Amino acid sequence: MEMLVRRGFLWQSFEIYGGMAGFIDYAPLGTGLRRRIEDIWRKYFVINERAAEIDTPTVCIEEVFIASGHVESFTDVAIECEKCGRIFRADHYVKEKLGIDVDETVEAIKEVMETYGLECECGGKFKDPKPLGLMFSTTIGPGKGKRGYLRPETAQGMFVDFRRLLDYFRGKLPFGAAQIGRAYRNEISPRQGVIRLREFNQAELEYFVNPKEKRHPEFYKVASDVVKLVDKFDNEHEITLREAVEKGIIAHEVLAYFIGKTRRFLLEIGIKDEKLRFRQHKDDERAHYAVDCWDAEVLTSFGWVEVVGIADRSDYDLRRHSMYSGEDLAVFIQYSEPIRVKKKKVIPKMEKLGPVFKDKAKKIAEMLKDATPADEIVLKIDSEEVKITREFFEVVEVEEEIAGEKIIPHVIEPSFGLDRITYAVLEHAYDRDIVDGEERRVLRLKRWVAPIQVAVLPLLSREPFTTRAQEIASMLKSEGFYTEYDDSGSIGRRYRRFDEIGTPFCITVDHQTFEDDTVTIRDRDTTKQVRVKVSELPNVLRELLNSEKDITEFGIVFRE
Amino acid sequence: MEMLVRRGFLWQSFEIYGGMAGFIDYAPLGTGLRRRIEDIWRKYFVINERAAEIDTPTVCIEEVFIASGHVESFTDVAIECEKCGRIFRADHYVKEKLGIDVDETVEAIKEVMETYGLECECGGKFKDPKPLGLMFSTTIGPGKGKRGYLRPETAQGMFVDFRRLLDYFRGKLPFGAAQIGRAYRNEISPRQGVIRLREFNQAELEYFVNPKEKRHPEFYKVASDVVKLVDKFDNEHEITLREAVEKGIIAHEVLAYFIGKTRRFLLEIGIKDEKLRFRQHKDDERAHYAVDCWDAEVLTSFGWVEVVGIADRSDYDLRRHSMYSGEDLAVFIQYSEPIRVKKKKVIPKMEKLGPVFKDKAKKIAEMLKDATPADEIVLKIDSEEVKITREFFEVVEVEEEIAGEKIIPHVIEPSFGLDRITYAVLEHAYDRDIVDGEERRVLRLKRWVAPIQVAVLPLLSREPFTTRAQEIASMLKSEGFYTEYDDSGSIGRRYRRFDEIGTPFCITVDHQTFEDDTVTIRDRDTTKQVRVKVSELPNVLRELLNSEKDITEFGIVFRE
Repeated sequence: MEMLVRRGFLWQSFEIYGGMAGFIDYAPLGTGLRRRIEDIWRKYFVINERAAEIDTPTVCIEEVFIASGHVESFTDVAIECEKCGRIFRADHYVKEKLGIDVDETVEAIKEVMETYGLECECGGKFKDPKPLGLMFSTTIGPGKGKRGYLRPETAQGMFVDFRRLLDYFRGKLPFGAAQIGRAYRNEISPRQGVIRLREFNQAELEYFVNPKEKRHPEFYKVASDVVKLVDKFDNEHEITLREAVEKGIIAHEVLAYFIGKTRRFLLEIGIKDEKLRFRQHKDDERAHYAVDCWDAEVLTSFGWVEVVGIADRSDYDLRRHSMYSGEDLAVFIQYSEPIRVKKKKVIPKMEKLGPVFKDKAKKIAEMLKDATPADEIVLKIDSEEVKITREFFEVVEVEEEIAGEKIIPHVIEPSFGLDRITYAVLEHAYDRDIVDGEERRVLRLKRWVAPIQVAVLPLLSREPFTTRAQEIASMLKSEGFYTEYDDSGSIGRRYRRFDEIGTPFCITVDHQTFEDDTVTIRDRDTTKQVRVKVSELPNVLRELLNSEKDITEFGIVFRE
Repeated sequence: MEMLVRRGFLWQSFEIYGGMAGFIDYAPLGTGLRRRIEDIWRKYFVINERAAEIDTPTVCIEEVFIASGHVESFTDVAIECEKCGRIFRADHYVKEKLGIDVDETVEAIKEVMETYGLECECGGKFKDPKPLGLMFSTTIGPGKGKRGYLRPETAQGMFVDFRRLLDYFRGKLPFGAAQIGRAYRNEISPRQGVIRLREFNQAELEYFVNPKEKRHPEFYKVASDVVKLVDKFDNEHEITLREAVEKGIIAHEVLAYFIGKTRRFLLEIGIKDEKLRFRQHKDDERAHYAVDCWDAEVLTSFGWVEVVGIADRSDYDLRRHSMYSGEDLAVFIQYSEPIRVKKKKVIPKMEKLGPVFKDKAKKIAEMLKDATPADEIVLKIDSEEVKITREFFEVVEVEEEIAGEKIIPHVIEPSFGLDRITYAVLEHAYDRDIVDGEERRVLRLKRWVAPIQVAVLPLLSREPFTTRAQEIASMLKSEGFYTEYDDSGSIGRRYRRFDEIGTPFCITVDHQTFEDDTVTIRDRDTTKQVRVKVSELPNVLRELLNSEKDITEFGIVFRE
């Protein structure tokens, strides 16, 4: 962490005012790294899916979270000291002081507190535990205004816009809606730095499917991938996704597809396969409405950390928003061809009705046609109940044609915690090795996520080296490369500096540059160098940065 | 606006719950368009400057905004009705009801209200006008917690991090720090849709300079650009930036440089030059600390709308944060070579001090050495004041070498309102023309900002056209193009649909595709079509999308 601060990846928020737990600043290199990860996420989960990205407000009116259930149940159980007034998150406090893993319910916590006579650090007594809302609340508009909350997840934006999204996709399932942005969780007492934040960054895809067709057209692409699974009974599997679905370990193909795609995404940005697993939520851990849920967990210095949640949220969210807003959020699913169903129908006998019911006979006949067949049918005519017995109608079987049906889609949600992912990528990239007999610290970031892609260095910090190097840096910037120029310190020290921030390539302007307009490119990982023409630099760099090719394919080897 | 909603650019937030003024959803196409604009902004104001992007929290502790002055003065004057309790923004209400432009001060508004006997719409009387804070406030942590605000601008993040940023840039001015993200303004009663939002998107660059060197190394690049200026006396100029600086219309080169760069950026994303001007803030309109301030204004259906503010904020922000936090936010500026200055210095006469002051003489001599020369020097020794007269010391002139000085940097801030810019780009792109004898609606977005870059269409909605078109769409997606596949409706109707959302190129799979593996590419603006090989599509599209080249350069003309 110290290295991350010093080198400009992450800083403490509000540092000059003493800081504030649960907030973090992305410094220049951290910002670049997270942006690169977001761009790759977008490629995986938006561009290459039938999906669209939207961007909805972080401040939402309370109706949204009453419907979603967050106002009622997005809470932690808290305990407050009668003496010092401090408030703690109960399960964390119990774990810290007693070493006990306790369920996060008021009852369970109360029992533990009473059994062990738990007191506050200050010696004071605790009041009874109670649930505490975890949303930041605010007021929209002047005066008393209207209550609003900072969203605890980006997902609700997609549910609230479902009708519009469905129109955008011309009424056809399946489709996805994605959002990358801020979310908030007013933690009681966050401690783990970047792992537990009050303001964090999410990338979420809500993939809406017909509940009768939980399949994905591209499952075949990942079906043979072998993944490490820990199921809800704590059994470990190393198994293909196809097998995991067939054996019923993963509930269905759509979940399996997104587990596979999530794994490929994480590997592409630099998470190590041997430090990645997917863990299934246990029955009592899963949200009550969720059908099945898997977390991608990554091994870091904090232990196994959840970085992605992949859940089948069923129709819960759409059903709730439909109920609370009064909007119809169902989808009409047309059958591939209309189906014919047999149905019993009532046929009134006019010749019998006429003499008995006189002027009401016609109305009764109309009503009978729509009535459910029975031995005796009760009709309400002018607020009077009329019993119609079997003699006045026949019941016949007819065949009807049905074009389709209305369903509420189910949603499969891969939800990514970008802050934890960014941090894990940094941890997994961090390495030490020996170069020229000296220990070196190197950040082995994948070339395509490195925040500074190329550094341009004059061999000596004087003319004409400096001017030529600056010209080349400008040229590379205008070609869109994240480029830095650096002329301070010995060339060896500068290489080390860029190794430490994960810059894959250093370009050096040396004496020969002025003879044949070539420069050297040095590879961060191998420290090999090749000479290339300045005019070829953009193309060579573009190809190198999008592949893992060896640098020696691209020029005359200058130094092994 | 109706077209923007229907076609998926912008939606009303929380529409199913009745909506909420001041909030907007970016629908899929709006999200794509704004992202593209952000990427180009980053190229202009981060990658190609000596600048770095950071990302700091939207929820900030109140210390930040006490220091910045927002808690005290980020307010609007409001009037509240005694009867119905509604609260209005006073200047807007006066303008609407009386047609008077009133200064936004409590005094001015009170005077107008009394003069005209202004009443509420409901017939009720208004209470006295008073300033109302415009920040959303919230509470961080449980219980009473700590007061926090949603940031009203991204800028403060850069000021608070100034020390860290200066280290990142190795202590050397000038440098810039940028941020793209959300900001919030709890408007009293916003009405103008996307123009006046409570939650909005900013892109801000804070460019820190030595106050004695308000120059930019790349001013020469824009110095000859001709810009339309409206100065603070309402005089209009069409003039080069160099001339504007020389004549003193623009205060200095750095402001002029960013005016030029802002104009080039706005033109690149599609703002029309004839609908763009830069207006200088009048003396009474400018923030008290600002040296000079220019707004980029764009002509839209709302009239001239401010979309960018370019201000010299002087050292105000850094000085305030330094004062409130106690951190030294000064920068040591090393002179190009040390300067020698003559200075008067006090030389104590020990032989005189000894006999009179005894054991205190030595201490007095030490203190005199650092004292400011004067005829009589008062020293405080052991909380006692001692007068030392001229007989006990000499004053001599010495020469000292000074390596540099400490200064508080000034900051030049180009601040972009991304929502207004995105909206203006859409308005400026909207056009109608006649194609094949029919009126057509077309969004002439610049090719590089279009949210859907290419549509792939089977000529007929059946096999084998559909499968081949889907294959090509997948191929283009995997090459990173924002691609859509569409097979519903006649080919003419589909072309119109993509014209209307600004998709620059439509690719059609027709009969000939199955003979020679070519497709047609149709240009949105000219409606010309050329045939190209499928294998060449990615390269052709890449070149077309990054230029304004005529499509006929890229293949055999199929249809003029």
